[in-house]
Amino acid sequence: MNEAQYDVVGLGNAIVDVLSHADEDFIVKHGLPKGGMTLVDRDASHALYDDMGPATEMSGGSAANTMAGLASLGGQPAFFGRVCDDQLGRVFAHDIRAIGVSYETPPAANGAPTGRCLILVTSDAQRTMQTYLGSSAEFGPEDVNDAVIRTAAVTYLEGYLFDPAPAKAAFRKAAEVAHGADRRVALTLSDAFCVDRHRDEFRELVDGHIDILFANEDEITALYETSDFDTALKAVRGKCEIAVLTRSEKGSVIVAGGDVHEVGIEPVAHVVDTTGAGDLYAAGFLYGLTHGHSLPECGRIAAICAAEVISHMGARPDVSLKELVAGKMG
Amino acid sequence: MNEAQYDVVGLGNAIVDVLSHADEDFIVKHGLPKGGMTLVDRDASHALYDDMGPATEMSGGSAANTMAGLASLGGQPAFFGRVCDDQLGRVFAHDIRAIGVSYETPPAANGAPTGRCLILVTSDAQRTMQTYLGSSAEFGPEDVNDAVIRTAAVTYLEGYLFDPAPAKAAFRKAAEVAHGADRRVALTLSDAFCVDRHRDEFRELVDGHIDILFANEDEITALYETSDFDTALKAVRGKCEIAVLTRSEKGSVIVAGGDVHEVGIEPVAHVVDTTGAGDLYAAGFLYGLTHGHSLPECGRIAAICAAEVISHMGARPDVSLKELVAGKMG
Repeated sequence: MNEAQYDVVGLGNAIVDVLSHADEDFIVKHGLPKGGMTLVDRDASHALYDDMGPATEMSGGSAANTMAGLASLGGQPAFFGRVCDDQLGRVFAHDIRAIGVSYETPPAANGAPTGRCLILVTSDAQRTMQTYLGSSAEFGPEDVNDAVIRTAAVTYLEGYLFDPAPAKAAFRKAAEVAHGADRRVALTLSDAFCVDRHRDEFRELVDGHIDILFANEDEITALYETSDFDTALKAVRGKCEIAVLTRSEKGSVIVAGGDVHEVGIEPVAHVVDTTGAGDLYAAGFLYGLTHGHSLPECGRIAAICAAEVISHMGARPDVSLKELVAGKMG
Repeated sequence: MNEAQYDVVGLGNAIVDVLSHADEDFIVKHGLPKGGMTLVDRDASHALYDDMGPATEMSGGSAANTMAGLASLGGQPAFFGRVCDDQLGRVFAHDIRAIGVSYETPPAANGAPTGRCLILVTSDAQRTMQTYLGSSAEFGPEDVNDAVIRTAAVTYLEGYLFDPAPAKAAFRKAAEVAHGADRRVALTLSDAFCVDRHRDEFRELVDGHIDILFANEDEITALYETSDFDTALKAVRGKCEIAVLTRSEKGSVIVAGGDVHEVGIEPVAHVVDTTGAGDLYAAGFLYGLTHGHSLPECGRIAAICAAEVISHMGARPDVSLKELVAGKMG
């Protein structure tokens, strides 16, 4: 195995976020599952947008946010995900390259427009997301560059991309190529509703095909159909090399073989918007893991990155995470 | 004269802002006039964008920001400005309507894409702007709805829109219609470089054709080709009914007939981005003026609105200005 050229290559939705403040009544009026992500078609996306307040557009996409975080930390990430050759597609491509992520997926010349995620942020800093996948859903095995996968230490798969069938095929191909090159494969479960839609496949993947699993409390309990975190923790133990379980303000738990490491949160003066918390946690963890840090150190870097992103609107870092982590880790 | 249906109708560029943090070296490297606005063509805009860091897209445009501020204050504003029927055009139209501005200019089915303003915010909170006008420059007299002008208490003209000839013709038409209906006409000089480009026309306008003038210190001294603020103040006195001169941290001066009112600034804990400071000052002032406030009160409302917008990234309010002002004015 040659030295890795990339630390992590992410496969996920290539999406522009449309962020707006909303009150609880708006969430209720539109029957949205608060705190979750729902897939919607173009018409439903337009109808909700028409009723939303003034918004801000920022590049998003879960794995794309994680790769942006890795770049901000000084790592070497790459990303595969599909946009259309339209204004929002150019925004997505600009932002991910500008932060330092290698991104070479060609934009689709036609087909659906670039996907967008309408994010309603309530005053409790919770985000409720409605995603129109657009050209993101057209991602397929042909968009995966095997050479890049082979040279990345970790291939990182976004659970959200399990919804469209061709993307799922791309995941399986990427995981096979990565393992064939003796690299590691990571998966994030993304969302409890997403787990409900794909429980059997996720379980089968986690049991032997995934090396590093990221899940929050809702997702891991949904995966094992339990309401108890410790039961879920026992269920995932031994299934993959490392399971990283995040629990919001309760911190995170890293399960690796017989070891369990509990990691506290990094304090935040004022939580503004939790969008991207899990994505940036994963960025910090994967940066640590690919740069020789111990698992507790990986958790600490992850917590610092998550704390930064929830202190402002938007799912990508506002400051250099490299400098931030250097300042905090001493 | 019937009661006004709109408090203010604004005519200006319909633009989406593309905001990014930048360091001083970047400004120098690209030879940009710091703190100013430069017009660029599409290729130059793309070239600068390619070199910029990750960005956030938010609706902008000077007069459009002012109308958004008026809506947030609880006023009744309308806006005329031209976008293309593309993704950024839909973003602009959504945001201005969502905040409560009447906006009926039809998007252009073809021609140039929607205009955008690349805004580089340095760590001193100064903003340096490069604008590609796009479809904004195609605004002309046919886009002005005389009926709306006649029923607006104030018609507000953005100096930036003096650059394209058809827009200038639209301004003259709107001013004539407004005065014909016994309404007031306001003008903002927008930018010192803009004043340099149109000094003679602005002087001729200010001398008898404009009722309310907004200018910052750089702009009013550029208009009268002096380096001394007091000289400029004396020069503008008597030329229009009200001249509102803003001086950044020195506050503002309102000149009306023989009266001069000095208004202090509203303190801000941390100035993040001065984009929109003048636009929101004008919003507060015009709201006060059209709601029966005295000139010093107008200045105070204006200062509160300006303080809000410079405390965060972006040129439109982040909170309800109506509630903010009610809380501060008691």
